[in-house]
Amino acid sequence: MQIEHNHFQYEVAPRQSANPVHTWRNWLIGKPLATAEAPHQTIGKAIGLAVFSSDALSSTAYSTQEMLIILAAAGAGAFHYSITLMIGILVLLFILIVSYEQTIHAYPGGGGAYIVARDNLGELPAQTAGAALLTDYILTVAVSVSSGVAQIVSAYPGVYPYRVWIAVGMVVFIMVINLRGVKESGFTFAIPTYFFIVMMYATVLFGLLRMLTGTLGVVQDPPPMEMLHALQPVSFFLILRAFSSGTSALTGVEAISNGITAFKEPRSKNAGATLVWMAAILGSLLLGITILANHIAAVPSEQETLISQLGRTVFDGRGVLYMGTILSTTVILVMAANTAFADFPRLSALHAGDGFLPRQLTFRGSRLVFSHGIMALSVIASLLIIVFQASVTRLIPLYAIGVFLSFTLSQTGMARRWWKVGHLQPGVEVKEPGSTLRYEKGWQVKMVINSIGAVCTFVVMIVFAVTKFHDGAYIVVILTPVLVSIFFAIHHHYKSLARQLSLDTPCSYNPLRRHRVIMPISGVHRGTLEALRYARTLSDDITAVHVSIDPEETERVQYKWEKRGEGIRLVVLNSPYRMFIEPLLEYIDMVVAACKNNEVVTILVPQFVPRHWWTAFLHARTADTLRKALLNHENIVITEVPYQVR
Amino acid sequence: MQIEHNHFQYEVAPRQSANPVHTWRNWLIGKPLATAEAPHQTIGKAIGLAVFSSDALSSTAYSTQEMLIILAAAGAGAFHYSITLMIGILVLLFILIVSYEQTIHAYPGGGGAYIVARDNLGELPAQTAGAALLTDYILTVAVSVSSGVAQIVSAYPGVYPYRVWIAVGMVVFIMVINLRGVKESGFTFAIPTYFFIVMMYATVLFGLLRMLTGTLGVVQDPPPMEMLHALQPVSFFLILRAFSSGTSALTGVEAISNGITAFKEPRSKNAGATLVWMAAILGSLLLGITILANHIAAVPSEQETLISQLGRTVFDGRGVLYMGTILSTTVILVMAANTAFADFPRLSALHAGDGFLPRQLTFRGSRLVFSHGIMALSVIASLLIIVFQASVTRLIPLYAIGVFLSFTLSQTGMARRWWKVGHLQPGVEVKEPGSTLRYEKGWQVKMVINSIGAVCTFVVMIVFAVTKFHDGAYIVVILTPVLVSIFFAIHHHYKSLARQLSLDTPCSYNPLRRHRVIMPISGVHRGTLEALRYARTLSDDITAVHVSIDPEETERVQYKWEKRGEGIRLVVLNSPYRMFIEPLLEYIDMVVAACKNNEVVTILVPQFVPRHWWTAFLHARTADTLRKALLNHENIVITEVPYQVR
Repeated sequence: MQIEHNHFQYEVAPRQSANPVHTWRNWLIGKPLATAEAPHQTIGKAIGLAVFSSDALSSTAYSTQEMLIILAAAGAGAFHYSITLMIGILVLLFILIVSYEQTIHAYPGGGGAYIVARDNLGELPAQTAGAALLTDYILTVAVSVSSGVAQIVSAYPGVYPYRVWIAVGMVVFIMVINLRGVKESGFTFAIPTYFFIVMMYATVLFGLLRMLTGTLGVVQDPPPMEMLHALQPVSFFLILRAFSSGTSALTGVEAISNGITAFKEPRSKNAGATLVWMAAILGSLLLGITILANHIAAVPSEQETLISQLGRTVFDGRGVLYMGTILSTTVILVMAANTAFADFPRLSALHAGDGFLPRQLTFRGSRLVFSHGIMALSVIASLLIIVFQASVTRLIPLYAIGVFLSFTLSQTGMARRWWKVGHLQPGVEVKEPGSTLRYEKGWQVKMVINSIGAVCTFVVMIVFAVTKFHDGAYIVVILTPVLVSIFFAIHHHYKSLARQLSLDTPCSYNPLRRHRVIMPISGVHRGTLEALRYARTLSDDITAVHVSIDPEETERVQYKWEKRGEGIRLVVLNSPYRMFIEPLLEYIDMVVAACKNNEVVTILVPQFVPRHWWTAFLHARTADTLRKALLNHENIVITEVPYQVR
Repeated sequence: MQIEHNHFQYEVAPRQSANPVHTWRNWLIGKPLATAEAPHQTIGKAIGLAVFSSDALSSTAYSTQEMLIILAAAGAGAFHYSITLMIGILVLLFILIVSYEQTIHAYPGGGGAYIVARDNLGELPAQTAGAALLTDYILTVAVSVSSGVAQIVSAYPGVYPYRVWIAVGMVVFIMVINLRGVKESGFTFAIPTYFFIVMMYATVLFGLLRMLTGTLGVVQDPPPMEMLHALQPVSFFLILRAFSSGTSALTGVEAISNGITAFKEPRSKNAGATLVWMAAILGSLLLGITILANHIAAVPSEQETLISQLGRTVFDGRGVLYMGTILSTTVILVMAANTAFADFPRLSALHAGDGFLPRQLTFRGSRLVFSHGIMALSVIASLLIIVFQASVTRLIPLYAIGVFLSFTLSQTGMARRWWKVGHLQPGVEVKEPGSTLRYEKGWQVKMVINSIGAVCTFVVMIVFAVTKFHDGAYIVVILTPVLVSIFFAIHHHYKSLARQLSLDTPCSYNPLRRHRVIMPISGVHRGTLEALRYARTLSDDITAVHVSIDPEETERVQYKWEKRGEGIRLVVLNSPYRMFIEPLLEYIDMVVAACKNNEVVTILVPQFVPRHWWTAFLHARTADTLRKALLNHENIVITEVPYQVR
């Protein structure tokens, strides 16, 4: 303990609580961790790949299938377009990776779209990017978990009727894992992610080998084909629409740039290398799966996923290897949801810290994570799953638009940053909240790269919004500006409050001249006398008030008060309407109306504290009722003096 | 204003509130009425018949039909037993009326089963009778409203899918009517009750006339027959079971004895005359309907009620007279629910006054009615309607058992009372809470009458419980003792609390020796300084406490406090776990642990009062959280000092 002036520095020891709720919580989510332990909570490249890549990698489980569902509107003959479309998507992936590699090095403290847009474009673009990303994280959870359940349904068709509740159960499971903290998440999630990478490469490579040796046939007993739209000829619009569905493969590539601080030093280098590895794995798997899907004549279906059809064709039936593929795919999709759980609370805390979301979101829970954000995410994602009945195809139209909006804003911000960097004097440093600017050679090339990224992702976003508008994209088109407006309304509230509470303009507080105490009593008993004893320490100006409903009861109260009331004045309020609160409010209003500015009235309510929860219903909550009714009165303080009975 | 000693008598004027909620409430449920207006709120025989007889009279709408549904198990050939059974029920009705006539004169202040059992048999029988009656009132609402909706469905089969929500809507409608008060209820309900009596006599008398003149045929296009049980031969058990269903006709005859105080003087005479009139109308209608139902070969059905079949057969199709019969029946059933609304809150207030239900139930609302009880009744009845899908046949097995249990207890209590009366010395008066005992000639006859009533109703109750056990009576058989146990648990709580708070054993309260104030602050602003100003009126021993999560923020707080903190000590709690509440609790625990018995600690929390409801989400409720956590600590008072921003 250090004492300086009248300041007293106090370190609280870890609370040894006998509270059974705490014990139970510790068992479920682990013991609290101190700030000092935080730096050790960083992760290396291998674990980083597992934690931050699962979102991107898992999209291999549904993106090809979602393209085929759109193409199915032009018949199975149109499926071959999927290969060309996938190559286009891989080009887009390449552009994004090069762009984000630059971001990671420019923002070693975390270069999510929110920070990049805030530092370079201003508040409105930053809030827009944030709204888009928060929406996207929620949809990542909903889509990934729904797709994971679809894999289970493929292997065990009997559970189809329970898919929605299985999905909600998964969300709750991931929530609990995340409340335990990021390090255990990293460890918990590394094995399954690598299991997925191995199984998926085994499937794709073995499939390609059999294809080249001519031993790979077509899928046996294909499920009934699904179509999202009515039968139509192949058109440019349909191709674009299929392309839009396919871009869901690119969701999640930004995850690493948001989570740079979670990496071991040198952060940027480790994060950048992880990004390249992730892109290589993602790209090769996407292409392999799309080629094989065409070769085996896979059919898009809600009954059986494309991965399941591929697995049982490559491995000749539902054997151990098939089951391994399905299991690993299911698990990676659950892990993908975890990526969102890592980033959503972090981003909402950033918003909250800047005053655009409720301040409570910046409070940390006991495990170095942002509990409020994690719980909000779980609830909203579960609702989406319930509303859209855990159907990936129905969720996809809401999905990628937010991602591409944030891509666009982030790349535009980066391009702007290079422009600023290029116009600095060499040797000059400009500190911005998220990064430090200093002159760099070759800024022009970097600006061009990010500009290309910005233009490409902007075009994809427009294509997506137009082709998917009626299928659900309109929801996001409406929701994003609404969210941004809410963020600004919150910001306005905090700013105006801070201004009004500010001590910068001169203000002085003279001591209060008079303190009156009003004590409503329903009877004269030990609780009343304890409250009276407390009242006497507050003021010499005390009035007890009794609301008279039953005259006999009132007589008893008056008689007892005369004996035990220590000469304190008792006011009896006759209640001709047999109400209790109303006459009391009337009286308080009258007293307060006579108050001067430097006077205060305390309403002192003796309140019985029930020992058992159920007895709470047997006692009126007078203080709460008065507090609600008198909230907007100045110069009134309501105090509840509890009395416990052993 | 009279001033006596230091007592101050204050009459509160009717509150002229600008609160829009009050204005709206006044429009919906009328202006508050003063106690002085209460005596004028009594009603005469004609209105009394309307208010208290609707329950009994409306059972004509379903009791015959419910007998037929049971007899249907032995085929339509068994229907003729219904006439004999109905005659048996009328004999029972006669016994009950004679018994209750005696009760009404013995208990002019209201002679419900609860009061009669309490005065003559003791607490356990009284609570049992009360539990049975409260259950019964709820079921009256559910059954009557469900039957009312069944009448509507008979006339407009298209609304069948919406029957549950129509029923719930009706319950809400009756609730609003009742929150307005009893006089308007009486007036509102008189016209429809008499409309029903006229329409039903028209149907029955015209039907009997056509029957005697041989022009009444059988029902055309009868609906499909309903059966509650599997096909079986006629057995004694089946006959008893049908009889049990028929006894639902007798529910509601006790209503007048509960509501005697609502009558004009001479109360007992008016109430007794009303009872006889009610019984005569009820008995003649029941018999007429049963005879006609047999003659027209009416078929029990969920699709079309017996009343509807009778109406369209007597009046040759669905003309104006048919529609009048259906309308009046629907309305009387809704009125029947109103009988329960008049008695349920009255009875629960009696229980609450004796300390067997939460005391709040004795508070009156603003319209001379017991708002809490009315709302509780509405909610529970609505739930029953939803669970039993507004089916009268499924609700009936829960219904009459409680009624007959209360009949039995009430008659037994009366018999006991006559025994006590018979053993008094002439001229001696014994005052009991509910009535005054003095010797009466002929007490033996009266005792025998009530004893016969007790035995008959007891036998019916046992028959009902046995024959309907599996159909739902078991719910009531289990529920009643559970309710009684809850009532006694509540009573025990209040009694033990009163004993512990009592001032009868000597106890003295020395003045508190020391008053410490702890003031948690998150920042230094106008709100903090206002709270500090208040704190200074409480004590000279003030400690401000700041939980430090962000070191920079803490430095700012320390700097500002040095300037504006008036030399008050500031304790900084480092929160290595980045929690807010936990370190604060730790510190408070430490301070309180050092407290002596005659010391008190006040936790003073500056609390921002949001101007708009939505901004409440943007501020932590620290005082509430602390209050919950510290509820069981003695010597701690938590005070919230509100600060408003204009």
